Amino acid sequence: MPTLRTARSLTPRNPDWEAALRASFAKQGAMGLIGARLGELRPGYVEIHVPYRADLTQQHGYFHAGITSAAVDSAGGYAGYSLMPAGCEVLSVEFKLNLLAPADGEELIAEGHVLKAGKNLVITRGEVYVRKGQGEKSTLTHCATMQQTLMTMYPKGAGG
Amino acid sequence: MPTLRTARSLTPRNPDWEAALRASFAKQGAMGLIGARLGELRPGYVEIHVPYRADLTQQHGYFHAGITSAAVDSAGGYAGYSLMPAGCEVLSVEFKLNLLAPADGEELIAEGHVLKAGKNLVITRGEVYVRKGQGEKSTLTHCATMQQTLMTMYPKGAGG
Amino acid sequence: MPTLRTARSLTPRNPDWEAALRASFAKQGAMGLIGARLGELRPGYVEIHVPYRADLTQQHGYFHAGITSAAVDSAGGYAGYSLMPAGCEVLSVEFKLNLLAPADGEELIAEGHVLKAGKNLVITRGEVYVRKGQGEKSTLTHCATMQQTLMTMYPKGAGG
Amino acid sequence: MPTLRTARSLTPRNPDWEAALRASFAKQGAMGLIGARLGELRPGYVEIHVPYRADLTQQHGYFHAGITSAAVDSAGGYAGYSLMPAGCEVLSVEFKLNLLAPADGEELIAEGHVLKAGKNLVITRGEVYVRKGQGEKSTLTHCATMQQTLMTMYPKGAGG
Repeated sequence: MPTLRTARSLTPRNPDWEAALRASFAKQGAMGLIGARLGELRPGYVEIHVPYRADLTQQHGYFHAGITSAAVDSAGGYAGYSLMPAGCEVLSVEFKLNLLAPADGEELIAEGHVLKAGKNLVITRGEVYVRKGQGEKSTLTHCATMQQTLMTMYPKGAGG
Repeated sequence: MPTLRTARSLTPRNPDWEAALRASFAKQGAMGLIGARLGELRPGYVEIHVPYRADLTQQHGYFHAGITSAAVDSAGGYAGYSLMPAGCEVLSVEFKLNLLAPADGEELIAEGHVLKAGKNLVITRGEVYVRKGQGEKSTLTHCATMQQTLMTMYPKGAGG
Repeated sequence: MPTLRTARSLTPRNPDWEAALRASFAKQGAMGLIGARLGELRPGYVEIHVPYRADLTQQHGYFHAGITSAAVDSAGGYAGYSLMPAGCEVLSVEFKLNLLAPADGEELIAEGHVLKAGKNLVITRGEVYVRKGQGEKSTLTHCATMQQTLMTMYPKGAGG
Repeated sequence: MPTLRTARSLTPRNPDWEAALRASFAKQGAMGLIGARLGELRPGYVEIHVPYRADLTQQHGYFHAGITSAAVDSAGGYAGYSLMPAGCEVLSVEFKLNLLAPADGEELIAEGHVLKAGKNLVITRGEVYVRKGQGEKSTLTHCATMQQTLMTMYPKGAGG
């Protein structure tokens, strides 16, 4: 059997990655505006939850694709950030989002995870689900999928 | 000299396209939330303007990529919608956004224009600029570029 | 626990999907040119293998990104085709490829699988691995990942 | 009137950019395999031409999307390379291709041009046309459009 090699190491290089991530997230005015909250966090994996509000919708009352993309771009960006050395910043270079189903429900759940963590470039994937109903009767619909490229911005003088 | 053929016809099929577009835009809660306004409208071309507010930012005080993508996804979507027959809806299938420069300024200007208007699929391009300063001393920085695929949703029974 | 809903059904609608797929693949001159062969086939899943040749390379002797994209675009396209009704054709609307690692090895293995099979649009994902070495000592490196949109072309008069 | 700022400078940093580009292109086995030739070259702009052959086709006899993507990925890559300092290499990070029309004709013409030339990242756009017929009666059909991210690989020790 061949050995599978990926360029993914999920060992954080910043021991305080979680505090740094939460502090950066709290500074994003746009995340506050849409009512986004951090969910589960692991090195290389970040969840962002956005409860439904009427002012987050498109013309049919579903979550607007712009809200979906804001949530999943941030989830991917912070998934990458969680693996970066202390003092670095994360820059979104590009992302590509496919919308799979109407985001019709009570909560958006955007997951970002790292596919490859290079020294300069980090590639992530994002999945977005929308939850409808509560508890055992609830459903999760896979409503969007994303591929994203991030860049690590090293502090000046750090020789990045 | 060869004749250039594109699949683009900018003749609107809905004589009331502009009123339909303005009515649909007004129903998007998310566009209201971020303070987006329609700018110049032509068949196959739509501009959306978003004045700066602190609650539209990422952690450095620039416009958040999610706001940029919400604005340009909508600009592209409505550019496509402007060419669709009366009674149709527009669906965003996917888009891809490259971020070219920090969106540092007082107003985002997102332009969407149609590259190809097929019967079912419409392909658009979007460009986003950020304006800094006023009048003659102002600058416009090209901060993002997008490629997008839309689908025309024909009314039930219309044989789309 | 919520129930996960995806828009993915892997039940083939053409009982002769595999024969139709093999016949279509055999007609692709470009697949023959690059020496591509079909690997494992299941409804909604297609593998394409491309053995190394010096005329498939970029300037450093690795597989050229164009060969990688030809293989994975076809793998995704045929994964979608495997679920389409008899008599339909598959059209590649767009795809997005991230290159994760140099494609340095003896064989490219491109996998396409369906994420969503709608009536008109099919969304797929592709993964590309490159194998180096033989048998137990061989390694597989994940060298590219793709998101793709396909369109089902129904036969004329079929009311698609 | 505002001043438009783009991050694009088309001044080559390698005085021998054209010779370096031609030498690199000549080493790409895959470009030879598909019969691709360099067309017009300017700093930040590269054309690649691919004459029709039956072994470059998909199942309907048009140019295969993989050939289109190989040509335009290379055109974009070399457009970026033309602006890089001597001794650098160009790496394709990702690209996204929309297919606009069947590539039905006698010659593919892929154009790549630079949208932004940063120190590390270069963003390009590509357009692909297919020519049918000869001379005054010929037509050019716009058959694909691409957005691409490249990375500049500086020589070891160059402090890139």
